[in-house]
Amino acid sequence: MQDLKNAPIGIFDSGIGGLTVAKAVIDALPTEDIIYFGDTARVPYGIKSEETVRAYALQITNFLLKRGVKMILIACNTVSASAKEEIIQAAGDIPVLDVITAGTHTAIGLANHHNIGVIGTLGTVNSRAYVEAIHAHDPTITVKQEACPLLVPLAEEGWIDNDVAVKTLHHYLDGFKGSGIQSLILGCTHYPLFKEIIPSILNGEGVEIIDSAESIATSAREKLGELSLLNDTGGEFQCFVSDRPQRFHELAERFLGRRLNGVEVVVLD
Amino acid sequence: MQDLKNAPIGIFDSGIGGLTVAKAVIDALPTEDIIYFGDTARVPYGIKSEETVRAYALQITNFLLKRGVKMILIACNTVSASAKEEIIQAAGDIPVLDVITAGTHTAIGLANHHNIGVIGTLGTVNSRAYVEAIHAHDPTITVKQEACPLLVPLAEEGWIDNDVAVKTLHHYLDGFKGSGIQSLILGCTHYPLFKEIIPSILNGEGVEIIDSAESIATSAREKLGELSLLNDTGGEFQCFVSDRPQRFHELAERFLGRRLNGVEVVVLD
Repeated sequence: MQDLKNAPIGIFDSGIGGLTVAKAVIDALPTEDIIYFGDTARVPYGIKSEETVRAYALQITNFLLKRGVKMILIACNTVSASAKEEIIQAAGDIPVLDVITAGTHTAIGLANHHNIGVIGTLGTVNSRAYVEAIHAHDPTITVKQEACPLLVPLAEEGWIDNDVAVKTLHHYLDGFKGSGIQSLILGCTHYPLFKEIIPSILNGEGVEIIDSAESIATSAREKLGELSLLNDTGGEFQCFVSDRPQRFHELAERFLGRRLNGVEVVVLD
Repeated sequence: MQDLKNAPIGIFDSGIGGLTVAKAVIDALPTEDIIYFGDTARVPYGIKSEETVRAYALQITNFLLKRGVKMILIACNTVSASAKEEIIQAAGDIPVLDVITAGTHTAIGLANHHNIGVIGTLGTVNSRAYVEAIHAHDPTITVKQEACPLLVPLAEEGWIDNDVAVKTLHHYLDGFKGSGIQSLILGCTHYPLFKEIIPSILNGEGVEIIDSAESIATSAREKLGELSLLNDTGGEFQCFVSDRPQRFHELAERFLGRRLNGVEVVVLD
């Protein structure tokens, strides 16, 4: 199994958002090699039909499999909601983890949380994927969802704590006040950028913020441990995108807080 | 020329934004047949490379030509900036108008305007297409640009005059105060939705707001008149998209303020 142990972990997203997952995985597993794919030519996925998202996700899965990954992390909530089963089937023996399952797992694991909030894109919220995943564990848990379409463009603009960000968060989150939620799942990989200010928006109601990027990184470490596939000699991070590598490069260094060697463009089919 | 006279006008955009152009054309030319194409599977174009935008724009041009249009209106600033020449070449004898040329034409036509402001997406502003188009007429005109990436998602969220919209517009437009601009070109087809509140943001400095959707509708009427191609017996409006017809249908009825018969999905290649 020496070869598979040293193989990279594949992470993908529709664009740059999944870099919060990459960062969490690098922090949790610093000696793993990682291949990241961002579908920057076709972002955003949240407004596309399920068929289209599935077709794109399978193309990316095949790309990662050809690169010999030992595990695939779906760092995109839209893909997790629409295409997880298809990806698992395409990946065969290679384990596939996704942000929805991971975030749900963390939320369910918290003691006595019977009232959970979820925020995400319109696509993720409409799919009710978190609601179904939570209810598969415990159908008595109350789940309150809110779609926050402006948070992704705000994060990409770098407006994560100015007056516009604060007002926008109030619009989306004020409905949670007094609702009794005990935890709030950040159901979009861009949202961890707002993690610092969300508690103040919720007026310190003691709501636990669940960052699904951290959740999936924890799940990945556990799963690789179970399979005896942990690598302690790697640490390379390679990025591939489908368009505009320069812009991705700049944003990626900001998201990751580290230098990147370069970003390669690949055409999928 | 009877056949060509009765042929439809083709209008296209990366998504729904170009519907402000369609609305202006319907208002200016109510007895013309119109075919609208919105590339909803691949929106937004503003963050894609020029090569990618050109390839997509040529696919759409070919689709419209096959449908027998008598004129093509590029209702997308990104395409106008990146692919106008290629579309003109592909269209042969069929006239091609674009929002950048039309908006510039209106701005230049205003008496004694020597100081013009332009707002647009990051792609449009970085392309400097408006600056170059204005300077081709008169290189002594001062042009001040500002990219406003959040206005498109705000418009699609329907937040066109709430507190978040007002604060966001202040962030983007406050830099124009005291700059002496006499007119402000709305260099993105979503921006006419903010036309009512922009004057109050600029504190009534008497800045003329130039809506390039209205400009291109006027140019289209003039051009069809010149070519004796005005149709006075039509009035049909047909919509085609590359993905998610239902969402487009809903937004389109809101943008246009009228019922639509239906929206058809086409796959381009």
